[in-house]
Amino acid sequence: MEIKEYIEGHKSRFIDELLDLLRIPSVSADRKFKEDVVNAARYVRKSLEEAGADKAEICHTDGHPIVYGEKIISADLPTVLVYGHYDVQPADPYELWDSPPFEPVVKNDKIYARGACDDKGQFYMHIKAFETLMSTNSLNCNVKFMIEGEEEVGSSNLDVFVRENTDKLACDVILISDTAMISMEHPSICVGLRGLSYLEVEVTGPNRDLHSGVYGGAVANPVNILCEMIASLHDDKGRITVKGFYDKVQDLSQEEREALNKAPFDLNEYKRDLDINEVHGEDGYTTIERTGIRPTLDVNGIWGGYTGEGAKTVLPSKAHAKISMRLVPDQDSAEITRLFTDHFTSLAPESVKVRVTPHHGGQPAVTPTDSEAYAAASAACEEVFGKKPIPTRDGGSIPIVSLFKNELDSETVLLGFGLDSDAIHSPNEHYGLKNYFLGIETICHFYRQFGNK
Amino acid sequence: MEIKEYIEGHKSRFIDELLDLLRIPSVSADRKFKEDVVNAARYVRKSLEEAGADKAEICHTDGHPIVYGEKIISADLPTVLVYGHYDVQPADPYELWDSPPFEPVVKNDKIYARGACDDKGQFYMHIKAFETLMSTNSLNCNVKFMIEGEEEVGSSNLDVFVRENTDKLACDVILISDTAMISMEHPSICVGLRGLSYLEVEVTGPNRDLHSGVYGGAVANPVNILCEMIASLHDDKGRITVKGFYDKVQDLSQEEREALNKAPFDLNEYKRDLDINEVHGEDGYTTIERTGIRPTLDVNGIWGGYTGEGAKTVLPSKAHAKISMRLVPDQDSAEITRLFTDHFTSLAPESVKVRVTPHHGGQPAVTPTDSEAYAAASAACEEVFGKKPIPTRDGGSIPIVSLFKNELDSETVLLGFGLDSDAIHSPNEHYGLKNYFLGIETICHFYRQFGNK
Repeated sequence: MEIKEYIEGHKSRFIDELLDLLRIPSVSADRKFKEDVVNAARYVRKSLEEAGADKAEICHTDGHPIVYGEKIISADLPTVLVYGHYDVQPADPYELWDSPPFEPVVKNDKIYARGACDDKGQFYMHIKAFETLMSTNSLNCNVKFMIEGEEEVGSSNLDVFVRENTDKLACDVILISDTAMISMEHPSICVGLRGLSYLEVEVTGPNRDLHSGVYGGAVANPVNILCEMIASLHDDKGRITVKGFYDKVQDLSQEEREALNKAPFDLNEYKRDLDINEVHGEDGYTTIERTGIRPTLDVNGIWGGYTGEGAKTVLPSKAHAKISMRLVPDQDSAEITRLFTDHFTSLAPESVKVRVTPHHGGQPAVTPTDSEAYAAASAACEEVFGKKPIPTRDGGSIPIVSLFKNELDSETVLLGFGLDSDAIHSPNEHYGLKNYFLGIETICHFYRQFGNK
Repeated sequence: MEIKEYIEGHKSRFIDELLDLLRIPSVSADRKFKEDVVNAARYVRKSLEEAGADKAEICHTDGHPIVYGEKIISADLPTVLVYGHYDVQPADPYELWDSPPFEPVVKNDKIYARGACDDKGQFYMHIKAFETLMSTNSLNCNVKFMIEGEEEVGSSNLDVFVRENTDKLACDVILISDTAMISMEHPSICVGLRGLSYLEVEVTGPNRDLHSGVYGGAVANPVNILCEMIASLHDDKGRITVKGFYDKVQDLSQEEREALNKAPFDLNEYKRDLDINEVHGEDGYTTIERTGIRPTLDVNGIWGGYTGEGAKTVLPSKAHAKISMRLVPDQDSAEITRLFTDHFTSLAPESVKVRVTPHHGGQPAVTPTDSEAYAAASAACEEVFGKKPIPTRDGGSIPIVSLFKNELDSETVLLGFGLDSDAIHSPNEHYGLKNYFLGIETICHFYRQFGNK
């Protein structure tokens, strides 16, 4: 009970420290916040030092820095590497926030701020769990921390850092809290993440904007053509038509699918929360399957022609879209990017020109459920939440999971405490205080289980 | 020959006066230019007075003013009503102009400025033709001028003005220069204009922007849905699928179509000018027919989701498009707007909500080729250009033509001197000096022919 008491006794400071971190607008995508990103890294280093790390340093990269910290007790003990990220998504549209995104407020037992859940609130639990174990003399593992500042922009410098520091980062398990659980009543552990392939397309018709009266009907309109091309990327069963897209998709067995669908899920509540009359996706799969085990294709942005007030009768020269695909094992991000590019280019009629430019990508990942680390995480959840956690497949992507597997030869445990309703990447992002404190407690129990193996 | 001499003798002043008018940024769509619009109206009134009008006045409306002027010689003479518009399209994108849109320059015998052709350069020819006839004592018609300031925003206050002033505006013919001719070698007179139905659509999926990883594949993406809906508006033969859309379309006889296609047209030159490999439109029709006698549907603008730099994995809440249809006789603008709204709404799957908002519209119009006015215009063209003009169907819309027919019971002659390559509504709009001066001369001859009937 020592752990619970320690957490209970330091609750208000644990909150205040997180609020201070949330006040730093560490938006990695916007160079305007460059100095803030560095300040957030400094804050993390200081927190690690104060929690009891032997070493805590800011490691420079070609982009934003990575904070590394460690507490090595003994070579005989297992080593846990904690990964997280202190950078956050851009906060716009600002006008849709009920309170400013970088002035955190606690309301209805939730912290509202950009990054509250993704991922400041979640990785900071690990620093506070570490402090708790150190202060109660109960840490029985070596611990390493690697908290980066570029997760929201593709982790492009993490590869190099990991490859160049495989000894320093050597570990028995990687522990990440950057995913969601089903609900407070139904603890779950994410065991699968989708990969990503993100591209931008440009369709060019005539060499200049034209008068739609003079030319309309005789010259290809790139917006209409782009719409046709995008529409043709799904068939009438909601399947993606890119040639070869499904070739490497692992189909789950009927048993695996049934297990997956046992997770509690209230479709009516889901629809009510989003204010939609009906869900929408690939025929023959449930909502849980559509976001968990099936690959998808979404337009993330589209623009072309006149978008101001009123009416302008223009036949535009160009139209653009940002299109991303979520991938599942064993799809390969680079290969899908290539297949998409070939397919999309082939769709274009002779009357237009098409350009496809890749943005970042990432590999899908599945983590094992038969490992000691998973067993420890499962036992820890059960101890705190009173229920055995359900293994789930998450729809999002954390590309570094497959990187860690390849470079460090370590499996990852995705022990997230967020909720899908936390509005990450959206206005009014928030994180429950209960999630925060139960998360800290669960992480402490994980170490105790894992160290006692 | 007096007319030609007078024009020749005042060329540089005729140019300078037009340049002064072009310097006034009378953009009717943007309230920022409200004062400039009024200044342009004042300039037109002054020009009419100086050219010899007995009366020239600024008539206020609920929107931008209408300039009215007249020279009544005798009740026994026929009366010509000149219509034109002194307002211009917005000039953006400014960065694509080689010289600032409201600082006109004369280069390669062309005047470059917003409004150079549409319609300042064209209606100002009428004022200079009027001056020429007055100064050479050769005006043999009564003349009335109605130059409005809202043509580019739908002429919404002209209806009321025309309806309330039918006596004042009574005339034997309405003369408008706001269309194009085939080329300087091939004079033509426009005898048909397409109508317009312009709408804005909004597709709403979830009630907020979502993370495309967490929800992608299970929740309708309004951009993808909008693309599908837009794509389905044309079938694979390029025909519009809106139910009932073609019901009232007048099909031309084989003879009429053959006559239309006799107009000189170089497809390779057309494609080269637009830098396209292929034209694109309804199967079974030529380019001249596609823009002249067939109705069309174009997306004029589309937007939704993240459109900034880089990548954001958002599943947007909303997607929008501006969509317009060009109509031909006997399609009715209000009816087509209704048919489109019903059809488009019916396309929406249950997973999204759709809103359709109409912008302005206008009726298609065909003007007779067997009238005395047309004969006068044809003879005037032949005298100046040395060739009988070809009657053509223009793709654009001048909604007031059908209004004049209904309210004033007068036919219109569309005696335009622009060229399709003049880049109206686009950057680097221009108007040839030769077109300007030959236009003035032709208009003078029109009066002489029409007055001598």
